[in-house]
Amino acid sequence: MSTGFFGDIQKIKFEGPDSTNPLAFRHYNPDEMVMGKRMEDHLRFAVAYWHSFVWPGGDPFGGQTFERPWFKDTLDAARLKADVAFEFFQLLGAPYYCFHDADVRPEGRDFKENTANLNAIVDHFEKKQAETGVKLLWGTANLFSHRRYMSGAATNPDPDVFAFAAATVKTCIDATHRLNGENYVLWGGREGYETLLNTNLKQELDQLGRFLNLVVEYKHKIGFKGTILIEPKPQEPTKHQYDYDVATVYGFLKTYGLENEVKLNIEQGHAILAGHSFEHELALANALGVFGSIDMNRNDYQSGWDTDQFPNNVPEMALAYYQVLAGGGFTTGGTNFDSKLRRQSLDPEDLLIGHIGGMDCCARGLKAAARMIEDGALSNPLAERYAGWATDEGKKRLTALSLEDLTQLVESSGLNPQPRSGKQELLENIVNRYV
Amino acid sequence: MSTGFFGDIQKIKFEGPDSTNPLAFRHYNPDEMVMGKRMEDHLRFAVAYWHSFVWPGGDPFGGQTFERPWFKDTLDAARLKADVAFEFFQLLGAPYYCFHDADVRPEGRDFKENTANLNAIVDHFEKKQAETGVKLLWGTANLFSHRRYMSGAATNPDPDVFAFAAATVKTCIDATHRLNGENYVLWGGREGYETLLNTNLKQELDQLGRFLNLVVEYKHKIGFKGTILIEPKPQEPTKHQYDYDVATVYGFLKTYGLENEVKLNIEQGHAILAGHSFEHELALANALGVFGSIDMNRNDYQSGWDTDQFPNNVPEMALAYYQVLAGGGFTTGGTNFDSKLRRQSLDPEDLLIGHIGGMDCCARGLKAAARMIEDGALSNPLAERYAGWATDEGKKRLTALSLEDLTQLVESSGLNPQPRSGKQELLENIVNRYV
Amino acid sequence: MSTGFFGDIQKIKFEGPDSTNPLAFRHYNPDEMVMGKRMEDHLRFAVAYWHSFVWPGGDPFGGQTFERPWFKDTLDAARLKADVAFEFFQLLGAPYYCFHDADVRPEGRDFKENTANLNAIVDHFEKKQAETGVKLLWGTANLFSHRRYMSGAATNPDPDVFAFAAATVKTCIDATHRLNGENYVLWGGREGYETLLNTNLKQELDQLGRFLNLVVEYKHKIGFKGTILIEPKPQEPTKHQYDYDVATVYGFLKTYGLENEVKLNIEQGHAILAGHSFEHELALANALGVFGSIDMNRNDYQSGWDTDQFPNNVPEMALAYYQVLAGGGFTTGGTNFDSKLRRQSLDPEDLLIGHIGGMDCCARGLKAAARMIEDGALSNPLAERYAGWATDEGKKRLTALSLEDLTQLVESSGLNPQPRSGKQELLENIVNRYV
Amino acid sequence: MSTGFFGDIQKIKFEGPDSTNPLAFRHYNPDEMVMGKRMEDHLRFAVAYWHSFVWPGGDPFGGQTFERPWFKDTLDAARLKADVAFEFFQLLGAPYYCFHDADVRPEGRDFKENTANLNAIVDHFEKKQAETGVKLLWGTANLFSHRRYMSGAATNPDPDVFAFAAATVKTCIDATHRLNGENYVLWGGREGYETLLNTNLKQELDQLGRFLNLVVEYKHKIGFKGTILIEPKPQEPTKHQYDYDVATVYGFLKTYGLENEVKLNIEQGHAILAGHSFEHELALANALGVFGSIDMNRNDYQSGWDTDQFPNNVPEMALAYYQVLAGGGFTTGGTNFDSKLRRQSLDPEDLLIGHIGGMDCCARGLKAAARMIEDGALSNPLAERYAGWATDEGKKRLTALSLEDLTQLVESSGLNPQPRSGKQELLENIVNRYV
Ligand SMILES: [Co+2]
Ligand SMILES: [Co+2]
Ligand SMILES: [Co+2]
Ligand SMILES: [Co+2]
Ligand SMILES: [Co+2]
Ligand SMILES: [Co+2]
Ligand SMILES: [Co+2]
Ligand SMILES: [Co+2]
Repeated sequence: MSTGFFGDIQKIKFEGPDSTNPLAFRHYNPDEMVMGKRMEDHLRFAVAYWHSFVWPGGDPFGGQTFERPWFKDTLDAARLKADVAFEFFQLLGAPYYCFHDADVRPEGRDFKENTANLNAIVDHFEKKQAETGVKLLWGTANLFSHRRYMSGAATNPDPDVFAFAAATVKTCIDATHRLNGENYVLWGGREGYETLLNTNLKQELDQLGRFLNLVVEYKHKIGFKGTILIEPKPQEPTKHQYDYDVATVYGFLKTYGLENEVKLNIEQGHAILAGHSFEHELALANALGVFGSIDMNRNDYQSGWDTDQFPNNVPEMALAYYQVLAGGGFTTGGTNFDSKLRRQSLDPEDLLIGHIGGMDCCARGLKAAARMIEDGALSNPLAERYAGWATDEGKKRLTALSLEDLTQLVESSGLNPQPRSGKQELLENIVNRYV
Repeated sequence: MSTGFFGDIQKIKFEGPDSTNPLAFRHYNPDEMVMGKRMEDHLRFAVAYWHSFVWPGGDPFGGQTFERPWFKDTLDAARLKADVAFEFFQLLGAPYYCFHDADVRPEGRDFKENTANLNAIVDHFEKKQAETGVKLLWGTANLFSHRRYMSGAATNPDPDVFAFAAATVKTCIDATHRLNGENYVLWGGREGYETLLNTNLKQELDQLGRFLNLVVEYKHKIGFKGTILIEPKPQEPTKHQYDYDVATVYGFLKTYGLENEVKLNIEQGHAILAGHSFEHELALANALGVFGSIDMNRNDYQSGWDTDQFPNNVPEMALAYYQVLAGGGFTTGGTNFDSKLRRQSLDPEDLLIGHIGGMDCCARGLKAAARMIEDGALSNPLAERYAGWATDEGKKRLTALSLEDLTQLVESSGLNPQPRSGKQELLENIVNRYV
Repeated sequence: MSTGFFGDIQKIKFEGPDSTNPLAFRHYNPDEMVMGKRMEDHLRFAVAYWHSFVWPGGDPFGGQTFERPWFKDTLDAARLKADVAFEFFQLLGAPYYCFHDADVRPEGRDFKENTANLNAIVDHFEKKQAETGVKLLWGTANLFSHRRYMSGAATNPDPDVFAFAAATVKTCIDATHRLNGENYVLWGGREGYETLLNTNLKQELDQLGRFLNLVVEYKHKIGFKGTILIEPKPQEPTKHQYDYDVATVYGFLKTYGLENEVKLNIEQGHAILAGHSFEHELALANALGVFGSIDMNRNDYQSGWDTDQFPNNVPEMALAYYQVLAGGGFTTGGTNFDSKLRRQSLDPEDLLIGHIGGMDCCARGLKAAARMIEDGALSNPLAERYAGWATDEGKKRLTALSLEDLTQLVESSGLNPQPRSGKQELLENIVNRYV
Repeated sequence: MSTGFFGDIQKIKFEGPDSTNPLAFRHYNPDEMVMGKRMEDHLRFAVAYWHSFVWPGGDPFGGQTFERPWFKDTLDAARLKADVAFEFFQLLGAPYYCFHDADVRPEGRDFKENTANLNAIVDHFEKKQAETGVKLLWGTANLFSHRRYMSGAATNPDPDVFAFAAATVKTCIDATHRLNGENYVLWGGREGYETLLNTNLKQELDQLGRFLNLVVEYKHKIGFKGTILIEPKPQEPTKHQYDYDVATVYGFLKTYGLENEVKLNIEQGHAILAGHSFEHELALANALGVFGSIDMNRNDYQSGWDTDQFPNNVPEMALAYYQVLAGGGFTTGGTNFDSKLRRQSLDPEDLLIGHIGGMDCCARGLKAAARMIEDGALSNPLAERYAGWATDEGKKRLTALSLEDLTQLVESSGLNPQPRSGKQELLENIVNRYV
């Protein structure tokens, strides 16, 4: 029985690139085979409960613009929200969803009430998942919105907040486990600082390292098979966040002995905020062996904050999925749209249209990336560029020769290497043949 | 015998804060005691040979503006440059200098000629050091200006360039060792990429890790007691540099087993380019145990490139030296001015005036930082803010309790922590009492 | 009768630079004479009602942190808020305040109720002003928070919103006039666009030009003697705002014939967001004859959004007030703190401390600027640098000679001008003698 | 007779989208009709002499990487450079080229020698133009590279530099006129400042206004029919440039009475540096009636300086040409590639490949834009969104009603406008149907 929120809109169908129907897919065709695998199984799309069903359309200079019948802080409203959300997942054919605890349950007066509320909704989600076949990509705890977390959760100067946060994460891992979630995510929205003047950096890093170790221990104890993921972001809401970017998180994991236990959920918008390209963060995570999942929402290049827009630039998507495929593709991870509608996009159908456009862009990007890989379009020139290192002499230089050996080699041979064209423009043109 | 380059300017003296003499120190007073140590021994100022005696005043849109009699590529000109430089160090009373090989010697046709030229100048430097008492803070190799390095030195796709770079670094460590340098620096100006399309990230990181290991091995072999320093920078000249920032370099050192062998030379301008404050990078290096030395030149906040200006904002200097002092102060490191004159500052005396202003700013910053530390102005409120973690219960939470223990604690005690003011404005006002 | 909100805190006194009392002024001494005028009359401080009494401490990732007894949408709560606010102005000794209509009245269901609510509060304000002697620096209308304005007010695609906004501005000018406000401000928070795809730029600019003309006409009609001020901001909340910066607004005023009717309220933080320094925007407004007033709150240089912090960097303040004084000082304008506490600064006394620190910084900056002016520290070297233009020959070149005349002059005289040092470091050192 | 520089490469042909030949066009088909006009006549491509034949591959951290036989400062080398350049224009089929005086002639010792050298090359160009049919899109004077201009040309504190610059511009307008250039461009690379401390803003703006008036007067005097164009750029090389962006230049033109005489040459990279999108600058220039021509090279979104890359993102090109076509297309303007090869792109064929890729991107963008216009894909929803303003009532509100009339209207009708969806995601999806 439909909630009626989306009127008479029917399940979104693939109609092919020539369709002008705004409520149809033009490129996302779940059963189409790409490099020997169904497109749906490559992309593993997830809808973000938070932005799509909870965000009221506010910004720092204005309040709610969206009017949703479930914008009340009751369990009944939370169940209505869930019913609409699962309708939405089905209309879209999204195989997965993701949620924070605070997205799905009413806010309680204390830990006990929060837990009870969460469990009540998890009961409801269990039923909805069974009915619809929609699965949980990941769960997470919102440890940043409530005022108790204003100075951090794991990194709070107050050990009571650490304890409260830890207990809350336990309930969220339990919920994710019950719902067969395939990953559990930690995004440290307030794990950072506003000013060093009131911050003990070393102490806070140690708290964060301990917290993450507790999570990993607990995961193993209860037999949760999903992946623990950290989502890096350099700043916003705090001025500096400890999980700045892929490289920073990797160093952190090494320091606290977690580099084999934790992987990364990489968001395009956060990569940009950190001064990187999305493909950089993906390539680096692959190189370091910590790639996990993606949030496929980007920032506006002109805006210095996290706009969490739907992706709409196909060439960028192609470069992103190129890295995903080059690293072997997703295992437990997927493509989450951690995307907000623009706050002027008031209508229920805007929510569908945003996702349809995003999914189509990703599908085009994936197909382009797959063809580049199949053709060796980039990998062949790359292998050629580094060919010297693949020779026995090259390997010896990398592993066996000392500084003195190398100096001896240069002196004795009169080595005077000449530069060779990097061919960036050629490679960019090659990419443009595919997008 | 003077070169005459600085006319009849005499050694710069300390004249106190009321002096209006542009060629006097108003705050830098080498013998003044600060926290029980001479100011000179705290600050350990070094002049950067590169920017002060080599840079011709060019930028991407215009050529040379400075006219220096030594701007010729001969050994005689190089010796004249050295004579003027040592005169300058003495006029200023700077105890240290720093150089790249390419700054001090004429460019040769090949490795052999480069080495011979370098050694000829090192002979000259030995004499000048002995005559003047000026010491070498650090030496380094320029592995970024010559076209052979356009695609990287250690990270070049061509193993011959790796070898050439390695041999060059050997000659520079040898030179630094001969000159009793207290550190050896590596700044990876081209160790990065312009486009991922032609870059094998993992391969290049492994090359860089190997290269750094070779340097460390060689240092021990020849008994060089100085510190090996890496200077992080996020970008420029390349679009992405592997030594992005402190956190990135730390993860890199851990990955290649070097975190106990290598420390960091942190530049204010590079911190800003990476989206950080200078004090953040210093505090993080302290927290991670890898603080080494500083380059005290900053960028313009409005310009998206490395302007390498002389420091001139005292409140910023105070926050920087606060971190330096809080970490115990310099050991082998010091305060290098990796600063360029503005390209319109043509006159010899501009070079003195730039350094005088920078040294005075640093001296004011140091004194303010020392007083804040002596008063516990920031450390007392900090200890109070984190007091909960210093209790037995706090320690137990950080080290002993599991996720389930913490949950049990929250449930049983009905814990519901209330936020406490972060007092940022109060702390900012306190700092303003000292600057 | 006190509301008790600030406990037993007494009026903040000037205690001089050696005071360590956090609730005292160390530099702001209202009656101290600076360049022949009382410091209070130079600075003309105003408290921003909005940030100080209305903002709940939320950000895009978290809700209310502040708990104020007046956070209810009733007239009684609005009167309590006003009582606390006027107590605050008096504790601080701030001669002025500023408000938006939406800050001071409860939100009504429609225009009529909004107007009635506003008028009820204006009645109350009249009494409070009379009781306390605190004056209104400026009033303004909030045309950006309510969802009806989500697509702009004057620049809305819907003419009904234009009308609603116009009527609302009329009520706010009326209120400002009744309260003897010395200026009326327009900040176009939603006068811009999110995407050009749905925006008719020319149409919207014409709407904005017309709107501003209506305001100016009405001001004259009712005999309001205050200055009409536009506050430029480049973006946020919208991706692009029409009142981008001083230069943009000036061009806009010229286009719509308003350059002699409207002046500018310049905010430090907005200058930074637009890629300028604050002193640039001030100097340009002076050069163009449109300087009006300032909002003395800045952004964090590391954060790409409007953090509206209290000013705390004295050298920056000195350069800002140098421009203000160089342009002749404020007439109807003043120094408004459009500053937010950090959201972790929960306590009532934080509100005082933020303002005290800001006022002290401004006072130090003002005094430094005044001394630079009195000494001709910067103006003398400036006059010397441009001396060539002050000669008869210089004037002739600027006003009388044609391109051919100038060519003739170069050819006949063999003119080959040599560059002269810009002496930037010297001038920076001079400034540092004053701050 | 070929110079041989490009080996045996033949004229680049259109081979259609399926071609994998790196030396063929896949989309640029000069004779293809687009909206009733040949593609070549729409795009009016020009090659930038400067970046393509003069730039040595240097950056602030490294010198020359390109080795070109004409890199000598003699007239013979300049003629060889011209011969290669015209060969290049023909290989590419580019109908236009652009140059600075300093690009094409050896640097002389003084004005007289500069002029003689320039005229010698103009003689040569006249022949080459006649032989090849290649035309001059615009000429310009380089008033920023030589050290005499380090403190500005028109805005120099020294009136002699103003005169020298004026005389130089005269020679360049004369050259452009002789060569039938269709426009004359002024880019004020040093017309700005490094620090306000040594800058008289008002004086410099007046100098710049006068200078531009001299140019316009001279153009009319000699009967030059081309358009005078200003190229805005916010910064780099200077910290602040007076021609910041379109809005700033427009205000400047109004101030100096030139808004009907001068149009704008808008560069994508400069738009980005100024915090705008390219399409914003184009749309604004159209709205203000000052659109002239484009430099179609962009910056890297991650790099804070002008990278002048070849365009390679088709969706961006489509939005840019949408604005160009919506404004009626080019008249005297065109699409100049003010693009540099990456400094690692050493080979002659890289120069061709960079341009081929750029031209293909522009062609795809143009075709997409044309189809959007023909379909009314964006203009129909736009007209609908603003339909209220096209009614008689809407027009009356914009032109006739006073603030009081509008208030009366709101009050009497109880007007309470409701927001309507901005449909940004739908419009973005529509654009993606075309790119
Ligand atoms: Co985000
Ligand atoms: Co995310
Ligand atoms: Co630097
Ligand atoms: Co440095
Ligand atoms: Co602001
Ligand atoms: Co403001
Ligand atoms: Co450019
Ligand atoms: Co250009």
